[in-house]
Amino acid sequence: MEDPRPSLSAALVAELHEQALVFADAARKIIEDAWERGFTVERKRDGSLVTSADLDVERTLRQLIAAHYPEHGVLGEEFPPTRTEADFQWILDPIDGTEDFAHRVPTFGSILALHYRDAPVVGVLDHPALGLRCHAAFRRGAYQNYFARHGGTARWHSDRVALTDLAPGVAPAQVRLVTSARGNYIRYRDEGSYFDAVTRAYPNHRIYRSCYGHTLVATGGADAMVDFHDATWDLAACRITTEEAGGAYRVVREFTVDGVSIQSVVLGKPAVVAHLCELLDAA
Amino acid sequence: MEDPRPSLSAALVAELHEQALVFADAARKIIEDAWERGFTVERKRDGSLVTSADLDVERTLRQLIAAHYPEHGVLGEEFPPTRTEADFQWILDPIDGTEDFAHRVPTFGSILALHYRDAPVVGVLDHPALGLRCHAAFRRGAYQNYFARHGGTARWHSDRVALTDLAPGVAPAQVRLVTSARGNYIRYRDEGSYFDAVTRAYPNHRIYRSCYGHTLVATGGADAMVDFHDATWDLAACRITTEEAGGAYRVVREFTVDGVSIQSVVLGKPAVVAHLCELLDAA
Repeated sequence: MEDPRPSLSAALVAELHEQALVFADAARKIIEDAWERGFTVERKRDGSLVTSADLDVERTLRQLIAAHYPEHGVLGEEFPPTRTEADFQWILDPIDGTEDFAHRVPTFGSILALHYRDAPVVGVLDHPALGLRCHAAFRRGAYQNYFARHGGTARWHSDRVALTDLAPGVAPAQVRLVTSARGNYIRYRDEGSYFDAVTRAYPNHRIYRSCYGHTLVATGGADAMVDFHDATWDLAACRITTEEAGGAYRVVREFTVDGVSIQSVVLGKPAVVAHLCELLDAA
Repeated sequence: MEDPRPSLSAALVAELHEQALVFADAARKIIEDAWERGFTVERKRDGSLVTSADLDVERTLRQLIAAHYPEHGVLGEEFPPTRTEADFQWILDPIDGTEDFAHRVPTFGSILALHYRDAPVVGVLDHPALGLRCHAAFRRGAYQNYFARHGGTARWHSDRVALTDLAPGVAPAQVRLVTSARGNYIRYRDEGSYFDAVTRAYPNHRIYRSCYGHTLVATGGADAMVDFHDATWDLAACRITTEEAGGAYRVVREFTVDGVSIQSVVLGKPAVVAHLCELLDAA
């Protein structure tokens, strides 16, 4: 399928990119306030957690998107999709890693992306409790923003990020890999053998939820991630953040559960992604 | 062996506790400055990384300890031990998770502990880049300090922490487990089968380095941790932080490599620790 994105003007992509960051700022403010003042936690029918902050963020983003781009569709984790036929679709997971958020583990994050005819144009991975954001837009590059001291004052910084590939054939033990918990690999069908193969071949791994793993990949904090059994919103931002940073993104498994597409992906430095795809093909 | 710690006066323990926090403040300042201004990275003979910050922190802590407690011994990761015969031993790992630190992943931490006749009296787990510290002292409780906004101003807060045990027989899939990377389980001898058993039985896991896992356990961010193939300094603070928070700490494997004791431990909420110990006994 031809990539539809080159038909978008650079000015339009720039405007959409800037607007997505403004939307993400609104989400961050809600999460920061909840992190500071508290929030309610409930268990959903699928057994996962949802907090008042998840719902507040998704409601607010939907209102902002509807006000700015009434012709665009929205697909989010907590509410039904709108305008599913539109060319532009905003896809969002208000808090990825809600269980971590609820237990005050700061590596949760917000995922916000804009897709055009199924291709990602803008992606934002935001980590309010870490003072960290990774974002990218088509042909505009990938960036990390972080809140830090430099020279005595604490403020937000912005760096463009560009990955340096590893040498082909680098020993897997030297690779810094992120992956999903084994529970993800068996969530919809038992693909635990892939977890076993990945953790044996790449012994130097960490396990985080998707959003923080995606940020680490795009910013070079990890060399690659193997992320299993994800919904569309989990993966909505990470292809554009990875590719604009110079990395590779591959869908390695795909199936449908109750009409919902579930994908498993490998993303990161191209030589590592290539080796991981070979490993998973053989497993 | 009788616990030697009740022979120490409460006033002495209080003084040692407060002094350890002052020492940890000095370590934190060095790490914050390195995080802000940069540091050099080298690879040690064992293949692991060491930065100028690791060396600066350990040198500074050794100087402070020698100035305040010249009769105490010091055991640290980067330099030879001193006064190994002393009753009081300061044990430290200046940066646990140096690889994460070097890649700007903020979940690294400093470990500082004081042992009396091999029993931990004070433990400090410090995470400068997260604005988080967990500490405890014998019969004085466990605490978390964190830098956060509350009511408009950002400042350090201190909460006493007390774990609420899970019900015995809780489904392992409901347990939030932290463990080591598979690379740790095979670091000195191949005990990878324990990794496989733990990750299969407890599918909802995260993988961090020791220090952050220990902090999550003591503060309730995780229910338990299985931490494999650690040196004395890796584990120096986590028994006292866990036990003073109301948790359990068990050494499950122990052997010696080149005269150095290597231990594998389980720590966390007592019901979960008991179940994990059964699992590991059977594996």
